[in-house]
Amino acid sequence: MASFFSDHKNHPANVICELCRLFYDNNWVTGTGGGISIRDVDGENPDIVYIAPSGIQKERLHPKEMFVAELPDKILRSPNEDNEKEPLSLDLAANFKYKPLACTPLFLSIYNLRDAGACIHTHSQNAVLATMIWEDKLVFEMNNQEQIKALPKLEMNVATGKIEKVGSLHNHETMVIPIVDNTPLEEDLTETLEATLKKYPGATAVLVRRHGIHVWGENIWKAKIYNEAIDYLLELAIKMHQNGIPLIKD
Amino acid sequence: MASFFSDHKNHPANVICELCRLFYDNNWVTGTGGGISIRDVDGENPDIVYIAPSGIQKERLHPKEMFVAELPDKILRSPNEDNEKEPLSLDLAANFKYKPLACTPLFLSIYNLRDAGACIHTHSQNAVLATMIWEDKLVFEMNNQEQIKALPKLEMNVATGKIEKVGSLHNHETMVIPIVDNTPLEEDLTETLEATLKKYPGATAVLVRRHGIHVWGENIWKAKIYNEAIDYLLELAIKMHQNGIPLIKD
Amino acid sequence: MASFFSDHKNHPANVICELCRLFYDNNWVTGTGGGISIRDVDGENPDIVYIAPSGIQKERLHPKEMFVAELPDKILRSPNEDNEKEPLSLDLAANFKYKPLACTPLFLSIYNLRDAGACIHTHSQNAVLATMIWEDKLVFEMNNQEQIKALPKLEMNVATGKIEKVGSLHNHETMVIPIVDNTPLEEDLTETLEATLKKYPGATAVLVRRHGIHVWGENIWKAKIYNEAIDYLLELAIKMHQNGIPLIKD
Amino acid sequence: MASFFSDHKNHPANVICELCRLFYDNNWVTGTGGGISIRDVDGENPDIVYIAPSGIQKERLHPKEMFVAELPDKILRSPNEDNEKEPLSLDLAANFKYKPLACTPLFLSIYNLRDAGACIHTHSQNAVLATMIWEDKLVFEMNNQEQIKALPKLEMNVATGKIEKVGSLHNHETMVIPIVDNTPLEEDLTETLEATLKKYPGATAVLVRRHGIHVWGENIWKAKIYNEAIDYLLELAIKMHQNGIPLIKD
Repeated sequence: MASFFSDHKNHPANVICELCRLFYDNNWVTGTGGGISIRDVDGENPDIVYIAPSGIQKERLHPKEMFVAELPDKILRSPNEDNEKEPLSLDLAANFKYKPLACTPLFLSIYNLRDAGACIHTHSQNAVLATMIWEDKLVFEMNNQEQIKALPKLEMNVATGKIEKVGSLHNHETMVIPIVDNTPLEEDLTETLEATLKKYPGATAVLVRRHGIHVWGENIWKAKIYNEAIDYLLELAIKMHQNGIPLIKD
Repeated sequence: MASFFSDHKNHPANVICELCRLFYDNNWVTGTGGGISIRDVDGENPDIVYIAPSGIQKERLHPKEMFVAELPDKILRSPNEDNEKEPLSLDLAANFKYKPLACTPLFLSIYNLRDAGACIHTHSQNAVLATMIWEDKLVFEMNNQEQIKALPKLEMNVATGKIEKVGSLHNHETMVIPIVDNTPLEEDLTETLEATLKKYPGATAVLVRRHGIHVWGENIWKAKIYNEAIDYLLELAIKMHQNGIPLIKD
Repeated sequence: MASFFSDHKNHPANVICELCRLFYDNNWVTGTGGGISIRDVDGENPDIVYIAPSGIQKERLHPKEMFVAELPDKILRSPNEDNEKEPLSLDLAANFKYKPLACTPLFLSIYNLRDAGACIHTHSQNAVLATMIWEDKLVFEMNNQEQIKALPKLEMNVATGKIEKVGSLHNHETMVIPIVDNTPLEEDLTETLEATLKKYPGATAVLVRRHGIHVWGENIWKAKIYNEAIDYLLELAIKMHQNGIPLIKD
Repeated sequence: MASFFSDHKNHPANVICELCRLFYDNNWVTGTGGGISIRDVDGENPDIVYIAPSGIQKERLHPKEMFVAELPDKILRSPNEDNEKEPLSLDLAANFKYKPLACTPLFLSIYNLRDAGACIHTHSQNAVLATMIWEDKLVFEMNNQEQIKALPKLEMNVATGKIEKVGSLHNHETMVIPIVDNTPLEEDLTETLEATLKKYPGATAVLVRRHGIHVWGENIWKAKIYNEAIDYLLELAIKMHQNGIPLIKD
């Protein structure tokens, strides 16, 4: 079994740590909420997936704290196996047991149904507030914004049955993000999420009401761009709402 | 007497400095307001408590500027004993005398009544503004938010008479944070705080009107998570109020 | 052909990277939106222009990812020529092709019509929101603010036919920034931009509705100051609007 | 003549650079607005004053770019004397001439009338917006906030005719900051400022309408605390106003 770690700054385990620090500064993963998973799409085995642990200070994550799984759902490596506690992110009680992110089943669904290369989950206040301002809506919609161009145009390829990226959205097109209701347990969202992924083939994100957002992409850098662009648009939408400006312009 | 200092990044005196810099960037301890105290729960003597000094630039704190006490209330070490002024956080006048945080009696009450491992006090504007928006309330209440899951479920163990953590709150449960009125002198809050700690066994924080918030936890990393999650929820609550969204959803 | 790179921190390719990181932190270039171009005004050939690539994480840019052009519009160097992918900003797929910023034609127009030394384009939410709050206006106008003094006073020199900086605006003078409508393709803005540059000789910036802002100056440091001052004023204007304070005071 | 520079991080020229970077991140000195001056109160000659230059990127300042004066008003050293341009903050045109901050006469008045140890001037939007929200007021007043305790209680000593710090304000006391109208030239504010300093002996700051704020203290660390605490209170006051909460509570 090859090593799951590397000194290279672009290795998935290292990128998760770098981006968790960035997301922490953006107020997206405070209180250990949210997380990141990366599929090793350029590696020897593109079914290998790295997943951040649950309940750990996101800005202090260490690469050796990652879980490693193989798609569809086999855990290959747990940080609990590591005897070397010292370099990790904090002083852990002797009986501490790492757990993967509670949203791991959702990440695995997204990998399997969408052939994604990375999944991002945040508790961004822009996402949470938007789902409450537009509480009676099942989708968040917005058009005529330049930033929409950062998002992918996704279409079902009827020949392969797979959803493929066929370009980028135009600025005058409408970005559509479905909104699903929250559940008491994060894993109970899986069924709803899977139905939503099928119902909205054009979506690269799902909002979870009073909870946050899931965003995915063909690799981590694209997923990061989509997440940033959507959060920018959600923030702008809330300001537009407060200034009486409609989100849709014909 | 063992040394109260160490090069290890997770030593209490070093963690106080690291977190004070972080809290400064969050606008929680500007103008030297607020502070942190850590109990050495994993050390040889778990009754040893580190306390930041009063009136010093929080983002420039040096570990040797800490006071060290032994519970219930004995000061073991003062930074005034240190002859080596050079490495400290700023040029101090020759007659400068360090004082421990004015809220030290409150921290000691929390350690003694709640068996806490760390206490955080901030002047967060979210906390202060919330106590004024809901000026006629004696408790701040909010439910149906995913971020509530980051908070502990605390219950009185009738056998031991101690308050114990029995899990985490569910997202649909109601977070309750008591609000007490401010007093001219910070130490005069002690009696009110102690009565509140007894009246609200489920609380892991107390808001002080027109002043800030006190948050505690079983260790500094948990206290940090609780403080971040509560501040996130207070910020969200203010935005909800401004958008006409009630904090409680049945 | 001389090298287009240098270790000097003030070399154009390095300054673009430094400022893109700064602009990223300001939320001006999230989701890879916006960009910077610098003309080597102090170099051997002042017609050499450095242009950031399109669609790359702005906070992770590497100097070798820059395009280099010679005015009026000849591309001298593309990062695709570089065989050394390793030190660049991210793991690039083998078939990845760099493209210069989509707004490159706009930058070249500004260099040619205004003899500028640097061009900045951001997706600042202050800019975008202002164009929607004042949706029926063709210019954004504001006066009686000290920060206006940071902006240049520009006048047409009838002898040379060139626009020249004759000093700074006074705080009681009115800053005028034209607003143009967005187009589906960024290059289609060129004609509108050129007409606007001619119609408003006193402008050092143009707002693009529901898109962002273009700012230029005699060198990158001046362009940076103008961009910061304008963004500050747009942010202030939005707050004034929300508090019912008019932007123009007689 | 002794050197005006040192490697010590707490040397006035170095502290100005450190704090200008911090203030830049706080959005207080964007677009090169605002600045800092420090009097060498602990040095051999406490009448030596360091003053930042005008129009330079505040976050990139170099200690050798400082002007040095001797009170009451003699310039001892100009950065233009320095032949070594390389290590400075940016590529300067060969004919560039440094100028001290335009508010230097105001700083000198404060040093002479108040025996201050440091002066801070910012273009904080909280300060500017407050002077417009309360446009008909000649003073900004606020009470019953814990953060008020960070501010000094100043009184005229009738024996010496000097204003002295006699302690700190209580949280229930009223902080009073006079507001003066802006003038086209910054130096024309001097007369108004001097009259205001005499009329309000208890003030440690003056707001300039549609411009910013001047704050001073017995040394730079105290001036920094006062400036942070006042900005915090101005920010809070604006939020209170937006939520219909009066600034004065009896």
